[in-house]
Amino acid sequence: MAESITIKGRAGEGNTFLTTAQVIEGLIKMLTAGKVSEAADVYSRCQEDIGYVLINKVKMQRYCGIKTACCFQRCVGLDAANSIFSTTFECDQKHGTAYHQRFRDYWKWVQKEDLMVDGAMTDPKGDRGKRPKDQADPDLYLSVKERKPGGVMISGAKLHQTGMLNSHEILIMPTLTLRPGEEDWAICCAIPTNTKGVRYIYGRQTSDTRKLEKFTLDVGNPSFGGQEVMTVFENVFVPKERIFLDGEIDFSGILVERFASYHRQSYGGCKAGVGDALIGATALIARMNGVAEASHIRDKIVEMIHLNETIYSCGIACSAMGQQTPAGNYQVNLLLANVCKLNVTRFPYELARLATDVAGGLLGTMPSAADLLDPVTGPYIKKYLAAAPEGDVVDRIKVLRLIENLVAGAGAVGYLIESMQGAGPPMAQRIMISRQANIEGKITQVKELLGIS
Amino acid sequence: MAESITIKGRAGEGNTFLTTAQVIEGLIKMLTAGKVSEAADVYSRCQEDIGYVLINKVKMQRYCGIKTACCFQRCVGLDAANSIFSTTFECDQKHGTAYHQRFRDYWKWVQKEDLMVDGAMTDPKGDRGKRPKDQADPDLYLSVKERKPGGVMISGAKLHQTGMLNSHEILIMPTLTLRPGEEDWAICCAIPTNTKGVRYIYGRQTSDTRKLEKFTLDVGNPSFGGQEVMTVFENVFVPKERIFLDGEIDFSGILVERFASYHRQSYGGCKAGVGDALIGATALIARMNGVAEASHIRDKIVEMIHLNETIYSCGIACSAMGQQTPAGNYQVNLLLANVCKLNVTRFPYELARLATDVAGGLLGTMPSAADLLDPVTGPYIKKYLAAAPEGDVVDRIKVLRLIENLVAGAGAVGYLIESMQGAGPPMAQRIMISRQANIEGKITQVKELLGIS
Amino acid sequence: MAESITIKGRAGEGNTFLTTAQVIEGLIKMLTAGKVSEAADVYSRCQEDIGYVLINKVKMQRYCGIKTACCFQRCVGLDAANSIFSTTFECDQKHGTAYHQRFRDYWKWVQKEDLMVDGAMTDPKGDRGKRPKDQADPDLYLSVKERKPGGVMISGAKLHQTGMLNSHEILIMPTLTLRPGEEDWAICCAIPTNTKGVRYIYGRQTSDTRKLEKFTLDVGNPSFGGQEVMTVFENVFVPKERIFLDGEIDFSGILVERFASYHRQSYGGCKAGVGDALIGATALIARMNGVAEASHIRDKIVEMIHLNETIYSCGIACSAMGQQTPAGNYQVNLLLANVCKLNVTRFPYELARLATDVAGGLLGTMPSAADLLDPVTGPYIKKYLAAAPEGDVVDRIKVLRLIENLVAGAGAVGYLIESMQGAGPPMAQRIMISRQANIEGKITQVKELLGIS
Amino acid sequence: MAESITIKGRAGEGNTFLTTAQVIEGLIKMLTAGKVSEAADVYSRCQEDIGYVLINKVKMQRYCGIKTACCFQRCVGLDAANSIFSTTFECDQKHGTAYHQRFRDYWKWVQKEDLMVDGAMTDPKGDRGKRPKDQADPDLYLSVKERKPGGVMISGAKLHQTGMLNSHEILIMPTLTLRPGEEDWAICCAIPTNTKGVRYIYGRQTSDTRKLEKFTLDVGNPSFGGQEVMTVFENVFVPKERIFLDGEIDFSGILVERFASYHRQSYGGCKAGVGDALIGATALIARMNGVAEASHIRDKIVEMIHLNETIYSCGIACSAMGQQTPAGNYQVNLLLANVCKLNVTRFPYELARLATDVAGGLLGTMPSAADLLDPVTGPYIKKYLAAAPEGDVVDRIKVLRLIENLVAGAGAVGYLIESMQGAGPPMAQRIMISRQANIEGKITQVKELLGIS
Repeated sequence: MAESITIKGRAGEGNTFLTTAQVIEGLIKMLTAGKVSEAADVYSRCQEDIGYVLINKVKMQRYCGIKTACCFQRCVGLDAANSIFSTTFECDQKHGTAYHQRFRDYWKWVQKEDLMVDGAMTDPKGDRGKRPKDQADPDLYLSVKERKPGGVMISGAKLHQTGMLNSHEILIMPTLTLRPGEEDWAICCAIPTNTKGVRYIYGRQTSDTRKLEKFTLDVGNPSFGGQEVMTVFENVFVPKERIFLDGEIDFSGILVERFASYHRQSYGGCKAGVGDALIGATALIARMNGVAEASHIRDKIVEMIHLNETIYSCGIACSAMGQQTPAGNYQVNLLLANVCKLNVTRFPYELARLATDVAGGLLGTMPSAADLLDPVTGPYIKKYLAAAPEGDVVDRIKVLRLIENLVAGAGAVGYLIESMQGAGPPMAQRIMISRQANIEGKITQVKELLGIS
Repeated sequence: MAESITIKGRAGEGNTFLTTAQVIEGLIKMLTAGKVSEAADVYSRCQEDIGYVLINKVKMQRYCGIKTACCFQRCVGLDAANSIFSTTFECDQKHGTAYHQRFRDYWKWVQKEDLMVDGAMTDPKGDRGKRPKDQADPDLYLSVKERKPGGVMISGAKLHQTGMLNSHEILIMPTLTLRPGEEDWAICCAIPTNTKGVRYIYGRQTSDTRKLEKFTLDVGNPSFGGQEVMTVFENVFVPKERIFLDGEIDFSGILVERFASYHRQSYGGCKAGVGDALIGATALIARMNGVAEASHIRDKIVEMIHLNETIYSCGIACSAMGQQTPAGNYQVNLLLANVCKLNVTRFPYELARLATDVAGGLLGTMPSAADLLDPVTGPYIKKYLAAAPEGDVVDRIKVLRLIENLVAGAGAVGYLIESMQGAGPPMAQRIMISRQANIEGKITQVKELLGIS
Repeated sequence: MAESITIKGRAGEGNTFLTTAQVIEGLIKMLTAGKVSEAADVYSRCQEDIGYVLINKVKMQRYCGIKTACCFQRCVGLDAANSIFSTTFECDQKHGTAYHQRFRDYWKWVQKEDLMVDGAMTDPKGDRGKRPKDQADPDLYLSVKERKPGGVMISGAKLHQTGMLNSHEILIMPTLTLRPGEEDWAICCAIPTNTKGVRYIYGRQTSDTRKLEKFTLDVGNPSFGGQEVMTVFENVFVPKERIFLDGEIDFSGILVERFASYHRQSYGGCKAGVGDALIGATALIARMNGVAEASHIRDKIVEMIHLNETIYSCGIACSAMGQQTPAGNYQVNLLLANVCKLNVTRFPYELARLATDVAGGLLGTMPSAADLLDPVTGPYIKKYLAAAPEGDVVDRIKVLRLIENLVAGAGAVGYLIESMQGAGPPMAQRIMISRQANIEGKITQVKELLGIS
Repeated sequence: MAESITIKGRAGEGNTFLTTAQVIEGLIKMLTAGKVSEAADVYSRCQEDIGYVLINKVKMQRYCGIKTACCFQRCVGLDAANSIFSTTFECDQKHGTAYHQRFRDYWKWVQKEDLMVDGAMTDPKGDRGKRPKDQADPDLYLSVKERKPGGVMISGAKLHQTGMLNSHEILIMPTLTLRPGEEDWAICCAIPTNTKGVRYIYGRQTSDTRKLEKFTLDVGNPSFGGQEVMTVFENVFVPKERIFLDGEIDFSGILVERFASYHRQSYGGCKAGVGDALIGATALIARMNGVAEASHIRDKIVEMIHLNETIYSCGIACSAMGQQTPAGNYQVNLLLANVCKLNVTRFPYELARLATDVAGGLLGTMPSAADLLDPVTGPYIKKYLAAAPEGDVVDRIKVLRLIENLVAGAGAVGYLIESMQGAGPPMAQRIMISRQANIEGKITQVKELLGIS
């Protein structure tokens, strides 16, 4: 992992990126001379705390996406913070609670301390046909187990926790709309990642152990990568000042829906950025293979760009059509944010397919770095993988390994599997699209046009 | 054609819509009570003359699209005006010409007189392998034939002129980037549509004669429709004060590129609006057929919405990422405007296919209005086309005929053929995407990531 | 309509093609010198009566498809005959009835008299949530109303009857699987099309009246075309010797499923043939436009061929994997026949889209034949539609009108709407695929591989 | 690797499957009691030596595909043998050579000795803009370096050699159509894999080292897998009786085209088989997740089946439309074989995408087998991955790991990358489709229909 962007995480080693507040500072560090003004510009626009300008968020995510060529794991906390910010405001208005100021205070501290915050939503869910309290094992949905004077004890688990291992703080949210009688599951709160009773079980991913190998050439992405954990909470104490919802079931669904929509917007930025990296790598390997000018190769790269910019356009559009919330921050357009994510469940697969087409068969057959460095086999590999006259074989291997990483390796977990399942699977977006699309309004217009009463 | 929106066109009968300045007034007239405030709101936002807020343009187009369920032919003049506005400004800066103020004066007059203006770009082109002056017939590209003290004489033709027949004025533009020696083709000017020497040859379209039939039930879209003309210019005189470029070949390509991009943005609004009408009709026929709740029907309608909103998102995004020009009006983002239009060459076809699926076989087999009204056959038709209990057979026929209109009838010319060819065919967008996408920048980022020099 | 292939239909004028037995003879007549041996070869292979070689059927249909560039309406009777042939055999085996020999006698007479036979299956169905006998109007499903010594009286209607108007005979079949108590609806029989009590109500189709216009140039397809009728049966008498099922409800579903599968196979031939015509026209207009060698044009034509041959491959595969029935004729593979048709609900739309792309904007804007022949406007049209030097403008118009016919005109009803709805909509094929695919077998294999009990 | 199917390979360890002649015998061994008759039936039909019934080949490949859920590496030798069989026959006819009998003798020996034979075609190619003899390094295309009394000395390399490491024999073929002066490259011959001077450099693949890990649960496919090698030939002696072409440049292109077409047919069988395994696994995980009956899940599985059967249909169709060669064996239809493979470059990607959708997020986040077996973490994993009541967690993990293997792991190299690049990339198929499709014939038909001379 690149030294310059490793920062003080508590939960684990191998932090790959920056804390929320340091995102932009990190960008500046990452950039060499010529890029400083660009980064500074992004930075200055991002200073508006939680009242983040939505379009800038997407632009920043795309920028980080191409810089890291992987899931950089910074969106979840941002999306959670923005959702909690407006939801607590509205909850206070209705119920006379005092969550909003509490959250503001918490978030100021986060920023002052320059901490990385993860958001945790997805419960294991167990038997999908049953409500939380009807599960054979009550822990299959995280809930409050005991109330004490200064706080609550919670137990349960959160799955698919991208980036939690290199965060300082966790924002815990409920996973679904809760009903009367399910108040104990309506808990939103924050804890440090190294709180007693929290355990992390690391997930295995395609080609993960290559990162541990001696020769880094095979790893594909030499500087960045992702990881996922299953997080278990066993009698974890949460002090009162870190609780942002506790039993207000009528705000559980609102919080879930907002978080999901912010997070679906995020994919319009980050995956477009990773798409940029894949497009760049594909254009580069075409050049190294000496086929960059073939009309069908150019056409495939244009198609990759077209699909990638369509994703980005959806990210921009749901931002541009967003609106300010009563709390003062900005909310994305719910319909278009879901349209954005639904495209992300499709187009990266086609980009990966086209990259595989352009890259050629070596993607699946290339010898290892160990054999390249071996005195007997190395010369053969160099001899026979020489392509266009000016190309360097090692550089060619680097580019092919990056493409392999993104289409069928460790990076594909972020670029493909996460594009499908992250922020909810396609059916979740379809349901939201159906709800938000105002089909009745369209029917009314058609009736009017046709003179049907 | 609906009376309320027919206005004072000069060139021909059957004007289907409004002058540029009256667009919003027309909307207000069209709207019944409950919609007035909405239309007034759109109107007030559109008053900003040429310095049009780009997003509002797209919203207005979508609104007109669902209202008319066809190509309403109002974008070409707007797009031409905006392109000429900024191009003349820059031309004056470079060449010391005085076109910009001249155009401003012209456009003020247009607005004061409340005129409808068309834009004319596409020349016949003849042999595509030859430059304008090398054509067997010099008229295959419109050009200046003679210069007189008070103006110029032009000859040639413009094809595919949507909406010209119901316009008062024509803005003529060159069709390609011109080179030294081709100054006579670098002419941009305005003339009234009833100028001496201008002839219109009406185009035939699928199912066009149904509009002339006795029984209107079969026409599909009872109030609106489109038409296309081939326009011939034979020794047409253009006075000096209506000339906005004359020989400045270095601005010909800029004008073409800007017009094309504005026009490609337009499709992100209008075709999304027509798509709304098709979605509304499809949802309505599903209900009338008694199958609206079938999961596969709902899924198809969600898919139609998703694709339609993706088109719209691209229209919004190229607007949101636009920028102000030195002349003061706003220019769309060129890359995203082309991405927008390229999606329009694809998704309406899939919407049409899905509508055909949901609508059922009657789309291709339904008896005529004449037979419905016939005392012998009418009762049989009513008896056997009764579907869900509460449905009215005539209403069902109306909805099916509207869908037929849009997927394989007169409306399909606007919704499908025009979506493919209008504002240039797909290859034109692909070339622009290739130019605008900064592929080198992506390659550089990948090299940096991989440590390739 | 071309004289050489108009034959003795009874029900109406304008027969567009041949009787079942004369299909091949007609082909021979159609063919000029050089093609006789090819047609004779097809003919000789088709002589095997009902025990038709399945692959030859698909080849013949493709051949007729490219020859006519439209739905030639000959498959329904063939598919009905083959389904009834095997179903009656099996019914006799189980119930001791004597339908099979009766049908054989009938079919011999059809062949001897050289008659054209249509198959009629689709009832109006009314309220889809109710069984036939629970409909408000009992006629919404055709049934036996009265039994007489020498036969039965039937009433009801059949919708979407392609080709019935130019047939001599109708084979009537039930439309769904019937249950005990629904014996009166389980009727399969044959009647002449001019039987007393049968009425035909002609369907309207996109651009249908162009066929009646003075100038044939605009019609698109100068020789062939289709039409659809709604057929009403009012107390129609069917003599005993023309009844092939009467009350055997357990064979109703078998008959429906077999007919549907044969008919879904048919689409793998005929639509591939119409696709050939569209590909030929597209390649020809590209040549006339002078762009045939552009790489993107060639690529689009290759894509059209690829999709069209995929359809054909499915038609061939479901034939090759078919098997002989106990009755001695051949049955297509049910799974692959449904896969075949499901592809036909998709690929012709993409072929039409690509043809629209290649053909250019004139597809929607071209002047009429009347204006072409007009002394004032004609010369302008010829002057400005001249493209590549050697091209003839009238020929270019002919090709464009044929493409218009197939993608958005009268031919699109057959090529697009019928491809979607004919032989059942996509959902009908999906249900059959789900039933036939042996998903359990695949699960078992996976369990075995993984050692899961 | 499963013991029962490991047989006497020479070149390396880990043979995953059977020799050509033993394919069926192996199947019998693999099958438990109930499957013997099925396998015996396949076996008996496959006994026809090289004159293989083409459809049976596809059926056998599909069968092996679902049994192994990976590339089983048996097609290359079969396809090479069939191509050489007919090419040598025709070469002898023209040039009076004696290759055909020599090859027959060789192949009889192969069958008698029950050997596994690989086919080797793809040369490194170096600078794609240059002919073999103009390369900087002459070894970039394998060629004859020296002629000796009893044979020839060859040098060069073959890339992407699937299955060579577990074969006994190699059939070497030229890689492109050769021209006069390039006779030394026109060499087709056979050598044992352990011949002196032959070296194998093993390719790295996604997740390859998981196969070497202690806990087999993570490997995904517990019994089968693939691998690829780069093979280097340094002064390798080939005796005269193993040479089947030597300098007959006019048969080089024929041999390449035939091999490619047979090999493209193969993909219609094997990849459909692997697709079956993926469909089975997806249906099984849906059941384990308790969502098998959700309409959108069922719909996605039907779509997977539909696409998979379309691939298979193309494999069947190019076989059914094949023909006997003068040599007596059978040749696939060249057009349809290329259509088949082109679909294989598309549909497996969509199957993988749909499987990823249905499988859920655990595909990218699931803990390792080591943690499952760990006394501390194991109980948490079992607790929180419990889904539907009756499901076993370990079984669920097995199925998810198999899906991971196929969509983004070691199996994806065979199922996705190889589907794209094996038997040539998509452009190679498009060129063949363009050549074989008889576009002129379609144009002629259209001209005839339209009366264009």
